[in-house]
Amino acid sequence: MEIAYFNGNYLPHENIHISPDDRGFLFADGVYEVIRWYEGFFYDMEGHMARLMRSMEGIRLTWDEAGSFPSVAQELIKRNNLHSLPVLVYLQVTRGVARRSHAFPSPDVPPTVYAFARSFRPEKEVISSGINTILKEDTRWASCNIKSVSLLPNILSFQEARKAGAYESIFYRNDIITECAHSNIFFVINDVLTTHPESEKILSGITRKNVLHLAHEAGIPVSETALRVNQLDEITEAFVTNTSFEIAPVIAINDKIVGDSVPGPVTKLLRNKFDTSVAALRS
Amino acid sequence: MEIAYFNGNYLPHENIHISPDDRGFLFADGVYEVIRWYEGFFYDMEGHMARLMRSMEGIRLTWDEAGSFPSVAQELIKRNNLHSLPVLVYLQVTRGVARRSHAFPSPDVPPTVYAFARSFRPEKEVISSGINTILKEDTRWASCNIKSVSLLPNILSFQEARKAGAYESIFYRNDIITECAHSNIFFVINDVLTTHPESEKILSGITRKNVLHLAHEAGIPVSETALRVNQLDEITEAFVTNTSFEIAPVIAINDKIVGDSVPGPVTKLLRNKFDTSVAALRS
Repeated sequence: MEIAYFNGNYLPHENIHISPDDRGFLFADGVYEVIRWYEGFFYDMEGHMARLMRSMEGIRLTWDEAGSFPSVAQELIKRNNLHSLPVLVYLQVTRGVARRSHAFPSPDVPPTVYAFARSFRPEKEVISSGINTILKEDTRWASCNIKSVSLLPNILSFQEARKAGAYESIFYRNDIITECAHSNIFFVINDVLTTHPESEKILSGITRKNVLHLAHEAGIPVSETALRVNQLDEITEAFVTNTSFEIAPVIAINDKIVGDSVPGPVTKLLRNKFDTSVAALRS
Repeated sequence: MEIAYFNGNYLPHENIHISPDDRGFLFADGVYEVIRWYEGFFYDMEGHMARLMRSMEGIRLTWDEAGSFPSVAQELIKRNNLHSLPVLVYLQVTRGVARRSHAFPSPDVPPTVYAFARSFRPEKEVISSGINTILKEDTRWASCNIKSVSLLPNILSFQEARKAGAYESIFYRNDIITECAHSNIFFVINDVLTTHPESEKILSGITRKNVLHLAHEAGIPVSETALRVNQLDEITEAFVTNTSFEIAPVIAINDKIVGDSVPGPVTKLLRNKFDTSVAALRS
């Protein structure tokens, strides 16, 4: 039986009930985090906690016990006997339950806090052979740096990718490639590893940040600059990063082959460095 | 005790439980409608139904029993003894409950359908004396014509208005005034009633449409064209429209007085026409 966390309690998942007046349900008035458990430790809990605080601040949401999240996540691993498995822990915080009105509840109501831990099978094939992708216009709002549950454009674009037999949807906004429906994207162009700079146009990915760090360490030339769509003709490699698949090589964009349709040397080097860094944390 | 509607049943509101895996809660993957009951009839049910169908199509959501909504709304009025009161009926349809994944559930799962009817006090003072407003950048996504629950930018902007002692937030996008956080906006400029044309940049308001119809009937010159922010200096009147307050005069924008700080003649004429049209439906 799955045990999840809800407003201070650990409960069977089926016993967790969200009010239909929850502002998460009515207004997408909430933020979330997803963190990975590597059979013994959480990956960059500090990074996830910092981003959670920024997201909450971004929508002016207060959860006084936010500092408890690391222990909640740990407890979910324990109560669900997930210690020795790859796990994603999901956390969502909303502005709580109040009679429907656009204005924030006044006086404040307690936030709704929901978290679960679920094991998953890392998609080894995706990671080793690479993925097909499609290009889609970035139709999202102006604050993509906030990890909000207002994800409708993301899921609609992701579904378009699925329908096209692809695994991810690459967004462009005004001819500039930003990121993907649920990952950041990196390119190798003129031997330089290139990714969109941090801004309100992308989510500040935890894996993105750590891959940049690994690239610097490995002496790979790095540029945090935006790529234009028409520069895609010049790229020699591409990969996407997120918490669950870490680094996934991109081998095609809109059916156009990237590189030699196999993971390129920079992608493979960074994958090795990433795996090594995780192994180092493990020991 | 409030009776609400949930997936085919009429239940005490407190007995309605949303799963934390509902895609409405996790992804804002749903649409909604709000329709007004005028002590005896619903206002333009046909218009609301048509928009509901368009919104569902816009996010590729299917609710086979959508045609039942008029009778559900009627039943909520009856079961809550609201017949002789001003009421708003709220309907929300989401893509249902499934283990969290960006892709649509496969196979399909039944949608979640939630509706409630609540009486309210029409804000007579707002309607008669007018409202203060603020100007805010339109930070929403690219499909504002879809009435989705992905409302985070709307509520954040509306809250900014409240904090500023204003009643509504007027959006501009690239220097063009679009609409407001929860209403459409009309201006009188050079004696022409002007409002943003229907497009993906605004919600196609039911009251907006009917006010345009009343203006045509009254022989008021009408132009569905976008107004630039710097044209605000030239307006002589402004008002906002939505289902709950119908027509509310705007008497100030960012503390700058509109007209003579009282509802203008076109606004008052349309208010009278609107009240008359409702009275005609009543009899």
